[in-house]
Amino acid sequence: MSQIMRAVMCCLAIVACSSSVPPAEPPARSDWRLVIHGGAGVILRADLSAEEEVQYHAALRRALQAGGDILASGGSALDAVQAAVLPMEDDPRFNAGHGAVFTADLGHELDASIMDGRGRDAGAVAGLTRVRNPILAARAVMEQSEHVMFAGSGADRFAESVGLDMVDNDYFSTDRRRASVQGVLDRRERSSAEKAGTVGAVAIDRDGNLAAATSTGGMTAKAAGRIGDAPLIGAATYAQNGICAVSSTGHGEYFIRVGVARAICARRELKGESLQVAATRVLDDVADLGGDGGVIAIDETGRYAFVFNSPGMYRGKIDQDGVETAIFGPNNSATEIAQ
Amino acid sequence: MSQIMRAVMCCLAIVACSSSVPPAEPPARSDWRLVIHGGAGVILRADLSAEEEVQYHAALRRALQAGGDILASGGSALDAVQAAVLPMEDDPRFNAGHGAVFTADLGHELDASIMDGRGRDAGAVAGLTRVRNPILAARAVMEQSEHVMFAGSGADRFAESVGLDMVDNDYFSTDRRRASVQGVLDRRERSSAEKAGTVGAVAIDRDGNLAAATSTGGMTAKAAGRIGDAPLIGAATYAQNGICAVSSTGHGEYFIRVGVARAICARRELKGESLQVAATRVLDDVADLGGDGGVIAIDETGRYAFVFNSPGMYRGKIDQDGVETAIFGPNNSATEIAQ
Repeated sequence: MSQIMRAVMCCLAIVACSSSVPPAEPPARSDWRLVIHGGAGVILRADLSAEEEVQYHAALRRALQAGGDILASGGSALDAVQAAVLPMEDDPRFNAGHGAVFTADLGHELDASIMDGRGRDAGAVAGLTRVRNPILAARAVMEQSEHVMFAGSGADRFAESVGLDMVDNDYFSTDRRRASVQGVLDRRERSSAEKAGTVGAVAIDRDGNLAAATSTGGMTAKAAGRIGDAPLIGAATYAQNGICAVSSTGHGEYFIRVGVARAICARRELKGESLQVAATRVLDDVADLGGDGGVIAIDETGRYAFVFNSPGMYRGKIDQDGVETAIFGPNNSATEIAQ
Repeated sequence: MSQIMRAVMCCLAIVACSSSVPPAEPPARSDWRLVIHGGAGVILRADLSAEEEVQYHAALRRALQAGGDILASGGSALDAVQAAVLPMEDDPRFNAGHGAVFTADLGHELDASIMDGRGRDAGAVAGLTRVRNPILAARAVMEQSEHVMFAGSGADRFAESVGLDMVDNDYFSTDRRRASVQGVLDRRERSSAEKAGTVGAVAIDRDGNLAAATSTGGMTAKAAGRIGDAPLIGAATYAQNGICAVSSTGHGEYFIRVGVARAICARRELKGESLQVAATRVLDDVADLGGDGGVIAIDETGRYAFVFNSPGMYRGKIDQDGVETAIFGPNNSATEIAQ
C-alpha cells in the first residue's frame, strides 16, 4: 500500500462515543449496554441503495434488541453478546453463518470466539463446515470442554457431540457471495470489502461484567485451512472484568500480528487510556503494517468506542437511552445515526 | 486447584537472568544471543537418571549451537530461532516433531509458530499430521502465503505444496509417549508434565533484530482438533523489534486466556518493565487463573529472562560468553547451570 493511501486511511473515520476524560468515580452500576458491529470495509453510501440501507439498519436493530432484552432483564453480558451475534449469523447480509463468504475451494469455513470477562473463560472454533451457528460452538467449547480452541473436523465433531444444530455446507451459500468469490478468482485480487466482514458484540451487564464475541466466514477466496483473527482470543476478541471488552473486524492477518484486542485492553489496563485513545493507537499500529479494519470496545464503566480506519463499519449500540445504528464513516456522511 | 497449591506455585522457581534496572543507554550492538526452552513442568531431579540428565543438557546444547552458529556468523535472529527449534523437533526427548505426544485418538497433531520482529511478519500452523518439521511449515506460511495461520488438512496441504518433507503420522510416535497417553486414558487425568511440553527459542542478532519460535505436539490425550497456545501469535509467540521476543510453554489454555506473549511485550513497551518483572507479573496472572508453565524472553538490548512457575524448565542460552543449560528450578537445585 502506498504511503499516501496509508496516510489517507489513518485520517479517515475515527468515530468514538467514549468521553476522553474518565470521571473521577465510576458511575453506579445501574446501567447496561451492548455494542455491535457487522463488519468494516469500503462501505460507501453510493454502493448501497436506499432500500438496502434501511435493511441493514433494521438488521442491526434486531441484533441489538436480542441482546438488549437480555441485559434489560438482568441477564449476563455473556448471554447478551451471544444473543446479538446469533441473528447476524442467520442474516445473509453479514459475513457469518448463513451468507458467509466462499473459500477458494468454493466451500465455507467458519470461525468464532467468545470470552467471559468474569473469569476470562474463553472458547473458540476455526474452520467449521457444518455448524449452523458458530458462536454456539465457541460457547460450547468454553463451557463443555477442557480446551479453549478447536479447529477443523475436530471442531465440527465436538459441536455435533454436544448436540448443536448441524447443516450441510451449502446452507451457508448465497448467490451474492458466489458472485463475489468468482470475481476474486477471476481478477486474482480482492477489494477491501472482500478481505473483511465479521460480526461481533461487546457488552456490560447490570453487575458490571464484560463479555465479547466475534463470528465470521473469513476472507473471500481464502485458502482452505486459513485462520484469520476472528477465532483468536487476543486478536479479535478479548474481555476482562474491570478493564475492557473488544471485538474487531478487518484484514485479519494484520490484526493477528498486532494482537489487536489484547493490545487495546493492555493499554487500558497499563496506561489508563480511554478506549478511544487506546483503540486509535492500536489501529494506527495496524495501519502502519498496511492493514485496515475496525473495533468496538466497552470499558469497565460502560463507556464505549467505535474506532475504524476503513471508510465504513456496520455498527450500533443499545442501552437504557435507546438504540443507535450507523453504517458510514463521518467523512462520507455524519447523519446516519438512527435513533 | 487449591489456594494452597496455587500459593506454593506462585512462590516456586522464579529464575531471571535479566538485570532489573535497565542501563541508561543500550549497549552497542556488537553482541548477539539465543535463548531456548524445551518445555516446563514437574521436572524433578528424582525423576531423571544421571544419564538422562546428561543427555538433556547435550540436546539443549545442540539446539543452542545450531542457532548460535548462525548468529555468530552474522545471520538473522529469524534463521537462528528456526535453526534452534529444528534439532529439538527431531529429538524424541522433546514434545515437538518426532517424540510428540499422542492425542486421545492415538494420533499426533502438531502446532508451531514463528515471528520476525523486523516487520512483525508471522506464520503459524495447527493440527499438522504429516509435516516432519512444523517450524518449517510456520516459516513457509509466513513467507510463501498471504495468510498468517493455517490449521488442519489445509495446513498439511499447504506445507506439501511448498515442498516440505512429509512423513507418515507414525513417524512422530515413540514408546515413551505411547505409554504416557495410555496412562492418561486409563487414569482419566493428566499430570502437570502431561499438560505441557513445548520447545521454543528467542534471539537477538548482531543487527538488533528480534525473533521468536515455538513448536509442540500439544497436550497428551488432547481431543482431536484441540489448539493450544503454541501456534497462536500473542499467546505463546511474539516478537517486535525495539521491544521484546517471547516464547512460552505450559498449560496452553491458560496462556491463551491471558495472552501471555503479547501481554509481556505490552508491559515492556507501555510500562518499561524489565522482562523479569513483566514475565513474572504475567505468569502470576496465569497462576491466578490456575495455570502453570514458563516463558523465555529477550529484550531490545539483549537482556533475557527465564521465568517459570513450574518446578522445572529445560532451558539454555548461548552468546559470545558461551553456553549455559539448566533443567531444574532453584528450589530443587540451583547448581545445574552447565558452562
